[in-house]
Amino acid sequence: MRFTSQTTSNGVSERLFTFDDIPGVLWSPVGAAGSCPLVLLGHGGGQHKKAPGLVARAHFYVRACGFAVTAIDAPGHGDRPRTEQDERSVAVIRERVAAGEPLGPQIARYNAALAAQAIPEWQATLDALQELDCVGAGRPVGFWGVSMGSGIGVPLVAAEPRITAAVFGLASGETLTEAAARITVPVEFLLQWDDEVVPRDSGLALFGAFASREKTLHANPGRHAGVPAFELESSGRFFTRHLIEGGDSVAVA
Amino acid sequence: MRFTSQTTSNGVSERLFTFDDIPGVLWSPVGAAGSCPLVLLGHGGGQHKKAPGLVARAHFYVRACGFAVTAIDAPGHGDRPRTEQDERSVAVIRERVAAGEPLGPQIARYNAALAAQAIPEWQATLDALQELDCVGAGRPVGFWGVSMGSGIGVPLVAAEPRITAAVFGLASGETLTEAAARITVPVEFLLQWDDEVVPRDSGLALFGAFASREKTLHANPGRHAGVPAFELESSGRFFTRHLIEGGDSVAVA
Repeated sequence: MRFTSQTTSNGVSERLFTFDDIPGVLWSPVGAAGSCPLVLLGHGGGQHKKAPGLVARAHFYVRACGFAVTAIDAPGHGDRPRTEQDERSVAVIRERVAAGEPLGPQIARYNAALAAQAIPEWQATLDALQELDCVGAGRPVGFWGVSMGSGIGVPLVAAEPRITAAVFGLASGETLTEAAARITVPVEFLLQWDDEVVPRDSGLALFGAFASREKTLHANPGRHAGVPAFELESSGRFFTRHLIEGGDSVAVA
Repeated sequence: MRFTSQTTSNGVSERLFTFDDIPGVLWSPVGAAGSCPLVLLGHGGGQHKKAPGLVARAHFYVRACGFAVTAIDAPGHGDRPRTEQDERSVAVIRERVAAGEPLGPQIARYNAALAAQAIPEWQATLDALQELDCVGAGRPVGFWGVSMGSGIGVPLVAAEPRITAAVFGLASGETLTEAAARITVPVEFLLQWDDEVVPRDSGLALFGAFASREKTLHANPGRHAGVPAFELESSGRFFTRHLIEGGDSVAVA
């Protein structure tokens, strides 16, 4: 793992790194003594490790929750080379989103192919990050990623036992539903009631498929890109509950 | 409004009152200077103003959020006289719940009749409470009530403009759906994924019916009585956002 830059802003350290040719970024609290729980951020389709929404989310998790946070560019995204297939798929995604149409099985297959490549990348990155003092091998790990972030994240969390809590959403499809049935860690799942690219029933079906004892669906009005801001804080509470407090949150009110 | 007792515990003042023959309870922060936002609690079928879950909720809202909180016995419940119809309906509810069956239109009609009586009672109680120093007429008012609490609460909130944020859930039916379509204030709606007395699709349909620009569905696995404990804190954040911070929480993340 090679760090290529370090900056700090508002108490948040941001370090760019490359690891096995994968560009990534690690945010952590400035001056934290010892290790922090780690949250992995999976960006959306056509986005990258430092998309503005991801940076704002990382700063919130570091400052409000005291987590270390990391993101890497998905295959064919950000600073990574694009194949012809990447270009074609991104073009299809943009067309469908612009037309307000469901992404369909073609994009589900593309996401599945990305996931097959991204899962070992995430796992190797996690190995390397856990050797850093600010992360440490013994601390809990969470995953946040919606839309394509779930397309990669759901099979990642199904495969990776170090991840013990996850926020997913804005996604559906048979491949993900099969992976979800192997996930038993706590899940918070975001659904947009008027999602133009993920039909409502298919999103509800994916939520239904998780085998987790604790899973909570947060559905809000609006389109695919319209997740309300208050869900950021909610996800911070979810991760705090599971990565720091370790409480039995399925007690009945 | 006649106060009949006052006790304090852990920084929470609890005063029992009667108003127009309706027994109620008011919880508020001990030693609060000035007025507080007020949250009305609607209890469930067969329960009453001081059911253990309601008392715990009231203490949480007072201590964690600084609200005043009130509950009154619904018609035919708690310390109020029961009619033969009340006895019959409660017996039917208990049978259906014990058998794990949907409550059905008969109970929906009973709840609608209760609501018709309870709405002016709540409104008169609110008039009287707003004359107290610890509540005040100018402060925002919220409503929390699930199951029968929503059976009364949804038409109450549709009718009462002083209530500016509400938590509902575990309910459905045509009467409520019609009332929900007249509600535009922020709503948090609880749904139990495996609710044995409220079919899932009918609960989703009631959520869909609210005309609110901000409405958020929280669905969790489990049966009717199994709402997870973390939803208490979530509702506290929801009320804090709307009754204290007054923020535009529908900004996009």
